[in-house]
Formats: sequence, structure tokens, C-alpha cells
Amino acid sequence: MQRYFVHAEDWNNNEVIVRGDDAHHINKVMRSKNGDAIICNNPKGQAAICEIVSIESDHIKTVVKEWLEEAVELPIDVTIAQGLPKGDKFDFVLQKGTELGANAFIPFQAERSIVVWDSKKMNKKMERFTKIVKEASEQSHRNRIPFIHPTMSIDELLKESENYDVKIFAYEEEAKVSNYHSFGTVIENVLENQRLFVCIGPEGGFTAKEAELLKAEDFSPVRLGPRILRTETAALYVLASISYHYEELRCN
Amino acid sequence: MQRYFVHAEDWNNNEVIVRGDDAHHINKVMRSKNGDAIICNNPKGQAAICEIVSIESDHIKTVVKEWLEEAVELPIDVTIAQGLPKGDKFDFVLQKGTELGANAFIPFQAERSIVVWDSKKMNKKMERFTKIVKEASEQSHRNRIPFIHPTMSIDELLKESENYDVKIFAYEEEAKVSNYHSFGTVIENVLENQRLFVCIGPEGGFTAKEAELLKAEDFSPVRLGPRILRTETAALYVLASISYHYEELRCN
Repeated sequence: MQRYFVHAEDWNNNEVIVRGDDAHHINKVMRSKNGDAIICNNPKGQAAICEIVSIESDHIKTVVKEWLEEAVELPIDVTIAQGLPKGDKFDFVLQKGTELGANAFIPFQAERSIVVWDSKKMNKKMERFTKIVKEASEQSHRNRIPFIHPTMSIDELLKESENYDVKIFAYEEEAKVSNYHSFGTVIENVLENQRLFVCIGPEGGFTAKEAELLKAEDFSPVRLGPRILRTETAALYVLASISYHYEELRCN
Repeated sequence: MQRYFVHAEDWNNNEVIVRGDDAHHINKVMRSKNGDAIICNNPKGQAAICEIVSIESDHIKTVVKEWLEEAVELPIDVTIAQGLPKGDKFDFVLQKGTELGANAFIPFQAERSIVVWDSKKMNKKMERFTKIVKEASEQSHRNRIPFIHPTMSIDELLKESENYDVKIFAYEEEAKVSNYHSFGTVIENVLENQRLFVCIGPEGGFTAKEAELLKAEDFSPVRLGPRILRTETAALYVLASISYHYEELRCN
């Protein structure tokens, strides 16, 4: 069943109104009729099966038939801070990270980031980013759309990280020593509903100075397996591992 | 240090010859000089630090200085069988799957595969695939280059799977029932050095008929978290989870 995220103001008691691109999608792409059912998600992360009761040119009126109880969100609240990578790799991190359950994303200007995002073009960029996470949330049947923060400096990032319970950063240097910090130990010690902050460097990784700053703010350096991952693969490794640990390994 | 995979015939006692694109890379891109060191891998999965002793226009002569003892390969031998996906998604699975430690890849023609690979263009395709896994192996500092099998039908795939100890397939239907097969249980029971066969459907997933065929050949259906993953994300989830389980969770 097709899934749509609907703004809070379009939920009125039992009636849910779908507008804009989504209304167009229901009407013109899915060619739905009155009586057909869709799934609507509200911003609180709840989902309901809704029946279409009227199709207008610019909106679709539906009524709630049944609230769904789905446990599709990661039990840990994970924010991915990604050092600005080259090309369209951030798009990729957003799409795959959403599929894998991330709760929020923070792009940040790292010392070794080769690109600088033009602030004049940020509105357009954020529009595209928002569309990517919305579509990936619908496609992967999530109940929440991840939040995308504005681009931060490393100082802003350190400040933001104070709101989190556990903080880690992927540090390639850790993969080269045998006495490295175990990613497994960190993950095992995160409690349900705690907030995890994951910091990933850009293509060249973190500088020694950045690593020191992060360590001073209680970020634990971790390795993500003994192989060297590309920057855009690191967040995926972290999210897949957390899903595996909390959703597949312990669910017997 | 830059890493190159060198054919068996170019290893002669202590002397290693690097040819072709790699020689060009050393000479023209890295602008290396005599006395500089590189890492050479042999096809057995061993690596050595080698010193450049002469630079010719079409080959570079080096001598082994030190054999490296690296444990960078997954302790389980994982083959990813991927139902032919659309566009360049198979390239993506090869690149990311190599980074994450896959041992081999098998593209297969699934019922719901929309594309059919033109057999006339297969040579060109395999050339590109081989280049992708070689470069990803070098970049991720692996000691082996994954093997890419020719495209198989489902029957050929079932026959090939007889060579494996444990067999699983990602089955979306399993994610919808509460009494699903746990991926964690399967992974926990794979022994070191055993061979794991992972079968991933194309965009539309497996048909019920394919699922029955796979089950009849002892493939266990697994879910990969409660969210619905795109086809090209599924293999990555499996490989990251195996790395996490065997390389990061148990290494304390």
C-alpha cells in the first residue's frame, strides 16, 4: 500500500487531507478511486490506513480506517554528521541512511572537505535533500522523515553534540593499530532511546587536530572493520550494524 | 602507501614487476622514484612492502622488503548473488560490496529483473566490473580481489549454491510477519571459514515461485531489519552486519 507523509494541519479528527505532489501521485500516477486505501503518516510517527472519500484536482480527502502499530524505527536515535563529501555523495548518504533508519543528518565543513557549499544555493539544495529523505522514508516504509540540519562548522558540531548521550567518530588511524577501540563495545552500551551521535570525516578523513577536538568532547574513535571504507560507505556500515545488533541479533 | 594487485607470473623470488595501468599510475600519477615503496598483493592474498628499483616506460621493477601480516579479509567467505537490477546499480553493489569484504559476486536473471544483459556486450561489461572490484580492493586495502561469476539463471544459481555451507535469501515477506526468521541466528551459527551464499532479489523482490525454489534448496529466508531496503542496499546490510558481528563485536 502506498504511503504518504501528511502535515499536522491536514489531520482533523478522523479526516486526513493529502495535497500537492502526493495528491497528484494518488490521482494521476496511482490512478486511485474513491474507496481505495492508502497509508498516511503523521509527524508524530504514527501511521493509519485511510480510505479515499473524494478526489479533487488539488487535494484528496481520506478518512482513517485503522491505526497501525508498527515498530519500524531504530530503537536508538542516530544522528549522522557527515563531513562534506565531493559530488553527489551526500545525496547518497541521505537516501541510504534514511532506508537504514537514521533519525537526523548534519552536513559539516571538515578541514579536508574539498567542496564548500555555496550559501546562495543552499535553499535549492535543502529542497532536494528534503525530497530525497521524504521519498526514501516512504519507500522504506518508515514512520518518520529524518531531519536535515543546516551545514555546520566543526565548532557548531561540537556544540550540537552536547545534546547526545553517546558520541563516536570513525577514525581510520584506529584501524591501523591492534589495540583499537571496539565499535561493538560502544554499541552494546547504548541504551534504548538514547541518542547516538556519529561523526564521519570527508574523503581524506579527519585531521589530527579535528580528532583531538572530538576526543576532548568525549567522542570515542571507532574503526568500522579492518578495511578502509569510502566516506559515503561509513555511515551505512554504522546504521546497518546498529539495526543488526538491536533488531536482528537480539530478537530471538 | 599505494597498493597494487600483481599477477602470479610477475612474482619471481624477491622480484615483483608491475605492468600496464598500474605501472602508468606509479610513474605518471604518483610520480614515484627509485627507492620509493609500494604495497604489492599476490593472488594468494598475501601482501608485501616492495621497493622500486627501476622505472621503465611499460613496467616497474620492485623488490620485496617486508611481508605484511594483515587480517583484513572477512573470516567468513561471502558470495553475493544479486538479481539483475536496473541502471548502474550492479556497479554500485560491486564497489561497496568489495569495500565491505565480499569474496565473490554472481549476477543472476531473476523473474522480476526488468533488464536482460545483452550477451554481445558482456565482454565489455565484465571488463568494467573487473576494474571496479580491482580499484575498490586497492582503495579499501584488501588482500584479495573478489571473483565475478558470469550471469546465471536461477537454475544455475541453485546448482552453484550446492558448494556452500550456509544459504540465505532476503525475503521482504518475512519482514511483514512477527514470527520471522532471524538473520542474527543464521549469522551466529556460521563457523569461521565456512562459505555463505547470500541471494538478493531485483527491484521487485523474489516471486513466490522463486522463494519456494530457494527454500527447497535449503536457503533460509531472512529479513534485514524491519524497514524495506532497496535491492542495492540489501547486500551492503548483510556484509556490514557480518563484519560487525565477527570483526567488531567479538574482538574485545
